[in-house]
Amino acid sequence: MDELDIEVVADPDLQDPVLVEGLPGVGHVGKLAAEHLLEEKESELVRRVYSEHFPPQVSVEDDGTTGLACAKVHAVELDDRDLLVLTGKHQASDNTGHYRLTDAFLDVAEEFGVETVYALGGVPTGELMDEYDVLGAATDGEFVEELEAVGVEFREDEPAGGIVGTSGLLLGLGERRGFRATCLMGETSGYLVDPKSARAVLEVLEELLDFEIDFDSLEERADDMEDVANKIQEMENQQSNVAPDDNLRYIG
Amino acid sequence: MDELDIEVVADPDLQDPVLVEGLPGVGHVGKLAAEHLLEEKESELVRRVYSEHFPPQVSVEDDGTTGLACAKVHAVELDDRDLLVLTGKHQASDNTGHYRLTDAFLDVAEEFGVETVYALGGVPTGELMDEYDVLGAATDGEFVEELEAVGVEFREDEPAGGIVGTSGLLLGLGERRGFRATCLMGETSGYLVDPKSARAVLEVLEELLDFEIDFDSLEERADDMEDVANKIQEMENQQSNVAPDDNLRYIG
Amino acid sequence: MDELDIEVVADPDLQDPVLVEGLPGVGHVGKLAAEHLLEEKESELVRRVYSEHFPPQVSVEDDGTTGLACAKVHAVELDDRDLLVLTGKHQASDNTGHYRLTDAFLDVAEEFGVETVYALGGVPTGELMDEYDVLGAATDGEFVEELEAVGVEFREDEPAGGIVGTSGLLLGLGERRGFRATCLMGETSGYLVDPKSARAVLEVLEELLDFEIDFDSLEERADDMEDVANKIQEMENQQSNVAPDDNLRYIG
Amino acid sequence: MDELDIEVVADPDLQDPVLVEGLPGVGHVGKLAAEHLLEEKESELVRRVYSEHFPPQVSVEDDGTTGLACAKVHAVELDDRDLLVLTGKHQASDNTGHYRLTDAFLDVAEEFGVETVYALGGVPTGELMDEYDVLGAATDGEFVEELEAVGVEFREDEPAGGIVGTSGLLLGLGERRGFRATCLMGETSGYLVDPKSARAVLEVLEELLDFEIDFDSLEERADDMEDVANKIQEMENQQSNVAPDDNLRYIG
Repeated sequence: MDELDIEVVADPDLQDPVLVEGLPGVGHVGKLAAEHLLEEKESELVRRVYSEHFPPQVSVEDDGTTGLACAKVHAVELDDRDLLVLTGKHQASDNTGHYRLTDAFLDVAEEFGVETVYALGGVPTGELMDEYDVLGAATDGEFVEELEAVGVEFREDEPAGGIVGTSGLLLGLGERRGFRATCLMGETSGYLVDPKSARAVLEVLEELLDFEIDFDSLEERADDMEDVANKIQEMENQQSNVAPDDNLRYIG
Repeated sequence: MDELDIEVVADPDLQDPVLVEGLPGVGHVGKLAAEHLLEEKESELVRRVYSEHFPPQVSVEDDGTTGLACAKVHAVELDDRDLLVLTGKHQASDNTGHYRLTDAFLDVAEEFGVETVYALGGVPTGELMDEYDVLGAATDGEFVEELEAVGVEFREDEPAGGIVGTSGLLLGLGERRGFRATCLMGETSGYLVDPKSARAVLEVLEELLDFEIDFDSLEERADDMEDVANKIQEMENQQSNVAPDDNLRYIG
Repeated sequence: MDELDIEVVADPDLQDPVLVEGLPGVGHVGKLAAEHLLEEKESELVRRVYSEHFPPQVSVEDDGTTGLACAKVHAVELDDRDLLVLTGKHQASDNTGHYRLTDAFLDVAEEFGVETVYALGGVPTGELMDEYDVLGAATDGEFVEELEAVGVEFREDEPAGGIVGTSGLLLGLGERRGFRATCLMGETSGYLVDPKSARAVLEVLEELLDFEIDFDSLEERADDMEDVANKIQEMENQQSNVAPDDNLRYIG
Repeated sequence: MDELDIEVVADPDLQDPVLVEGLPGVGHVGKLAAEHLLEEKESELVRRVYSEHFPPQVSVEDDGTTGLACAKVHAVELDDRDLLVLTGKHQASDNTGHYRLTDAFLDVAEEFGVETVYALGGVPTGELMDEYDVLGAATDGEFVEELEAVGVEFREDEPAGGIVGTSGLLLGLGERRGFRATCLMGETSGYLVDPKSARAVLEVLEELLDFEIDFDSLEERADDMEDVANKIQEMENQQSNVAPDDNLRYIG
């Protein structure tokens, strides 16, 4: 295998397509959002991207068959415009790999005539959330204004450490190659997979790209996660109740 | 030395050979199984594979002589068909190396006309085992059915994290190059070298490839390991008995 | 993107220029010093250096726009001579990258006719400082004498572990390419960003390169840092005052 | 700079030379031994080997001048035969680098007509030593016998993990290129720099290569180290004496 291997699965003509990226990251927000898009809308797999820079790994499907680590690009046809949706189970496993894979993703986008890139992700707040703001960053000031107009938040010094991984490089390398790109980051505690944050991000995307999507299945996952979170909290409360007695044992 | 260096030691004509891989991994199950095959059957070393992607290391034999880190491929002639058995003391030491070495192993397999690959390994259960099921994964559904027919287990979401390292890539890269491949994973606690799990895997292989093998020496190693496991457990029991008194010392 | 990508932003004619480097490091002394130079003097951005060896990351500016990780070279025109000032938010993220990036920085320096390199940095003392000596190292004995003449300290076995990263390689690779190079290292505790140490380094540079600079804004940052340091110390004192009581709770 | 850069400093004709390697490792035994050879015998620097695979670092000499990380090869003329002595402050900083640097060292050896390689090192015992055996490993059985004849120990399963780093690869890669090679490993606790172990290794080398060397300066360093070791032990003893009282404080 070469360092990078882009498998052409299909080559449909797409109408004014944009790239939407949702690879694993903070709270798996971007991944959940992109996968929800693919579940709710009809889609066609158009590319698989294999690389030595992915972990040396196969996944095992429910039927017992295996698939080599890769990123997938699906085409989704919406009313007004089409989407290329980039998903996968892995980020690159080394720094150089992040650069080379992101360049490959942008090659695919370029082939299909993409001009605008939406990287989806999460931004960790360190605390459990009730409301889910969506933070933004973009390659140019005009794009920033467009995003502010639909409620995306821009805050000084956030995200503090910049944006890392594929999402960051889609903006960084994308800008240098002439793409307009934004990263939409749903606030999330950072501790758990967060379907509610994914919904918040998708709602911004709905407005930006003028489409509608059903959130029922994502809400179900959110309820499941809430049950998990509540159980964790209960267990923690029980532990801290027990602790004092535990200490007493050492005193007599 | 080049990045990869395949040394041709012998070039026998083989009859309908399959590749059997047993490199180090969980419970050393695959390694034990492959090495037991080589101990019990007559074999001929046919290739050594050296690489910068192995650790920078020599092993020291009992006679004081050294050997550079490598993987070895032996030919084993059985009644109906021949085997190529891949063994070694090391996995690749970096991610890219896993891809490049596995491609080299598949090159060797291709040279000998191999069409089917059996990767042997272990799957950790986290607890000491009484019965040893063998879990499977394969490159295509037909192969899955063949394996189910001889008692290999296929379970949803297992192994949870997919299959990593050479075993995983023999399936992932193998499929892309047109090989049929399976990974047979013996259940094992994950804490100890596990000859019993290796036996379970070999029993499946006996049935699949229609050969017979003696397990006495493997059983001896299993008994030795059991002694070790029992001693560890005894020591742990003693420690937890001692602990309370130990704490008392702090109280008066 | 290539492994290294030097973007030409401007190509002014410079008068007898020297290279001044201030990338992140111990106490951010070099970075603070170089950035202060750029704040106080008029400067022109002449090069951006991008590389796969930088972290895969974009920074987000206060206006919400992003910039790919890079190092920047500014030209600063002084009365007698000009400076090329190398700054950035990152060091290389791997060892090989340090070598390749430093060679790229020296390529830029060579293009502009630079003969002498001043790497700025900090040397950790492990304790809070009242006086800030500047330690030196240089590529040749004559340069050492020049530096001693303006008060730079040279001490046996300091810095103990040599000089690592870009600063070190500007001397090591620089010497091999025919540059004269020195590293000026302000003493600093190593625990905090240290504007006072940066000032000490800049004062040496003023004398060496015969220019003057205002330190008011750097002093303000130093005062801010001192407030931070005092608060930390207060908190530590309070904690150690509280500790005895805390322990009592365990006794009765 | 290229990935590897062998600087030719001198090109003397050498009489039947052997390569003696002493890079940093367990107890710095090999490094101490090789450096002691260079201190006691007249030597001439013949090669410097620079590489991206060394740490990105310069050392600072006592006169304040710097030197880029490198390995050095000195020629030492003895009565009967000459030595090429390989020393340096660093091992390669990555696995691939170990392979490439060792190949470069063997290139230098080949240029000078070397046929036999002596890698010097330490083998950790985990306890303080009174007597210092020297363990061996070699590329062929005949060499093993030669070494046994001068008192080198060969023990089954020692060293347990094989031999890693440059010393290991000088045997592993050396053998594949037609060199005879041995690794002589002085027993050492593994906790401290160990001049006594270095002496034990050099005494074996004296006998093998028929030369004599003065050990006074090495003995002085050994005495210094013993003082250090004694102080550490005293401090440990005091701490364990204090500990009980310390615990009492928590009880009342």
